[in-house]
Amino acid sequence: MALIVQKFGGTSVGSIERIEQVADKVKKHREAGDDLVVVLSAMSGETNRLIDLAKQISDQPVPRELDVIVSTGEQVTIALLAMALIKRGVPAVSYTGNQVRILTDSAHNKARILQIDDQKIRADLKQGRVVVVAGFQGVDEHGNITTLGRGGSDTTGVALAAALKADECQIYTDVDGVYTTDPRVVPQARRLEKITFEEMLEMASLGSKVLQIRSVEFAGKYNVPLRVLHSFKEGPGTLITIDEEESMEQPIISGIAFNRDEAKLTIRGVPDTPGVAFKILGPISASNIEVDMIVQNVAHDNTTDFTFTVHRNEYEKAQSVLENTAREIGAREVIGDTKIAKVSIVGVGMRSHAGVASRMFEALAKEGINIQMISTSEIKVSVVIEEKYLELAVRALHTAFELDAPARQSE
Amino acid sequence: MALIVQKFGGTSVGSIERIEQVADKVKKHREAGDDLVVVLSAMSGETNRLIDLAKQISDQPVPRELDVIVSTGEQVTIALLAMALIKRGVPAVSYTGNQVRILTDSAHNKARILQIDDQKIRADLKQGRVVVVAGFQGVDEHGNITTLGRGGSDTTGVALAAALKADECQIYTDVDGVYTTDPRVVPQARRLEKITFEEMLEMASLGSKVLQIRSVEFAGKYNVPLRVLHSFKEGPGTLITIDEEESMEQPIISGIAFNRDEAKLTIRGVPDTPGVAFKILGPISASNIEVDMIVQNVAHDNTTDFTFTVHRNEYEKAQSVLENTAREIGAREVIGDTKIAKVSIVGVGMRSHAGVASRMFEALAKEGINIQMISTSEIKVSVVIEEKYLELAVRALHTAFELDAPARQSE
Repeated sequence: MALIVQKFGGTSVGSIERIEQVADKVKKHREAGDDLVVVLSAMSGETNRLIDLAKQISDQPVPRELDVIVSTGEQVTIALLAMALIKRGVPAVSYTGNQVRILTDSAHNKARILQIDDQKIRADLKQGRVVVVAGFQGVDEHGNITTLGRGGSDTTGVALAAALKADECQIYTDVDGVYTTDPRVVPQARRLEKITFEEMLEMASLGSKVLQIRSVEFAGKYNVPLRVLHSFKEGPGTLITIDEEESMEQPIISGIAFNRDEAKLTIRGVPDTPGVAFKILGPISASNIEVDMIVQNVAHDNTTDFTFTVHRNEYEKAQSVLENTAREIGAREVIGDTKIAKVSIVGVGMRSHAGVASRMFEALAKEGINIQMISTSEIKVSVVIEEKYLELAVRALHTAFELDAPARQSE
Repeated sequence: MALIVQKFGGTSVGSIERIEQVADKVKKHREAGDDLVVVLSAMSGETNRLIDLAKQISDQPVPRELDVIVSTGEQVTIALLAMALIKRGVPAVSYTGNQVRILTDSAHNKARILQIDDQKIRADLKQGRVVVVAGFQGVDEHGNITTLGRGGSDTTGVALAAALKADECQIYTDVDGVYTTDPRVVPQARRLEKITFEEMLEMASLGSKVLQIRSVEFAGKYNVPLRVLHSFKEGPGTLITIDEEESMEQPIISGIAFNRDEAKLTIRGVPDTPGVAFKILGPISASNIEVDMIVQNVAHDNTTDFTFTVHRNEYEKAQSVLENTAREIGAREVIGDTKIAKVSIVGVGMRSHAGVASRMFEALAKEGINIQMISTSEIKVSVVIEEKYLELAVRALHTAFELDAPARQSE
């Protein structure tokens, strides 16, 4: 008999009908003999409705009070699911973050979990109850209600699984697992049986929206096996674990991620003196603009070019900051491009395989795709290319790294 | 500097606009120098919306889980008001029943307050904050969320006032005070400056909807001065106190209450034996039908007639129960009437004045109104009459007991 934490998101509990479906699913699992803790989000749309209400009072709602309002969203769904379970003859009880007690710091709207009291939950599980817990919320040491910030329900699920030493944390979503790449771009994309935390982190940070980055970090840190599953379809999903040795034949590349949300900026003819990188990025960071890739090449004629990427929404803001900097440090000019895309190959297997990057570059070259920027980490190679080549590049890489599913054959 | 508890109901916080108005009002009071604790209900309609949601899952929602859902209604309004106050530069903080901690028993959906922890509130008041508390809700000793039942926000206000030894508990409503009778029936009805708890209780139990009976009982028990005021109009309202000696010339009658919600049932030709009243009312009570007035007259020919009133909605149910009983005890017949009304005169002054009842009967006789039933208590005389005479009776009594306001003169 295993102890499983199951997390269902806002669309999975978006209506009474959906909640009834979740109850059916939970009942089935319970009858199979597992102990279950179920973590829920608010009904989809509800959190936004509550925030809108607060914004009608004030553009910048007081964070403490906003948490009091927003936390009611999950409070409603947990009780509805507990009722639906009890109606089905499954003993169940709901708990808010405060009732569990999920202790967080006092950073309202973006609190971090410090500690979880597992006593009540363990006692209920022992009594045969399914325990339904409000995701996304907690309470600080003074008894103030806190929320973990958007998507925080995944984090609640993982933290509960860690605290309870659960056998698995299952995250139910609208996809049936993690894919080698986006199936809308590459029809041959395959669902992965397994992926490591590190790979999942890279995939997530590169734009794959299946899981919250924070919850994956958390799961990795506490070694909580995480499984991504479809809320309303049967299937094994994708297991995310630390266990990279388990399979003998580790594929070199697990997946291909991509991202069209970035824009690049280059400051050219920068005097090549120590501290110049800070002079350029300091003001960007001071303006709260997040920078992703950074490339600086070796200097020639005592000047250098410095390129980085930012979110496309912040391109104009970054450009104006950079133009100020260019004047101050005597750089030649600022140029930029918003029509770019980033494509990344990810896989723990590349650690032990040389030549992965060159195989990537070869595949792109074959298609006549020019590489504008390159950045690498231990388990990832990212390139920036012209946006219009994105699909072509992803498909070419998917084939080059032998990720395509066998044609017409399911799993 | 006084400590005042102010309670605003659902219509007073029924929209963002209304909440802003309440904030203006609270700010004004605060600036006048009083320490303020504000108790709020949910936005009007919200509690019903939440109950409907629960009923979509189950006709008979699990009481514990229903409380988890329903309590979110006030949780939203308290935070919205706290935000609106802070926006106005008035330091404020919101607390749920659990946060305060309002300890109740575990009777979900109709819990009773056992104890209130005043530490947090006192600390906040000391810091100059307005404390906004969710009405209608509490928490039991196990940390389960409870609700006090419909209208329970008044009770929260009074209980807080008692725990804090507040100088006054102000209940803001959609009327500007307690009237000698319903002004829709008697245009000359006057707002009372003052009324005793006992009188208010009789008025409330007789159909005057200004205050929850429970909150008046509570206020009387702990001697909390209670004031009924209009949410959005200025005025002194009506003060409800224990202090009946204060005014030298106590009027004999404070008000006239009435009620069209009852129906009467008579079982005739009942064998006049001991225990027969129990045999008749036992089955009625076992069917959860509440009985109001009960009249049994002296027997003749060894049989008696037994009459009582029930809520009109329960007339048919009561009739069928009574017909069974009639067969069992060998009574002659069951007759009933739904077209009745109850009219009551209420006043602590009648204790020391003989002849109040006869003055009432005289006034009714003058108008040719036949009295069907009579019931009296120390500070009340109630009669049942034909429904069509209701308005006529109330107006006649209002004049007979000199309650009419001086014509064309406002307070």
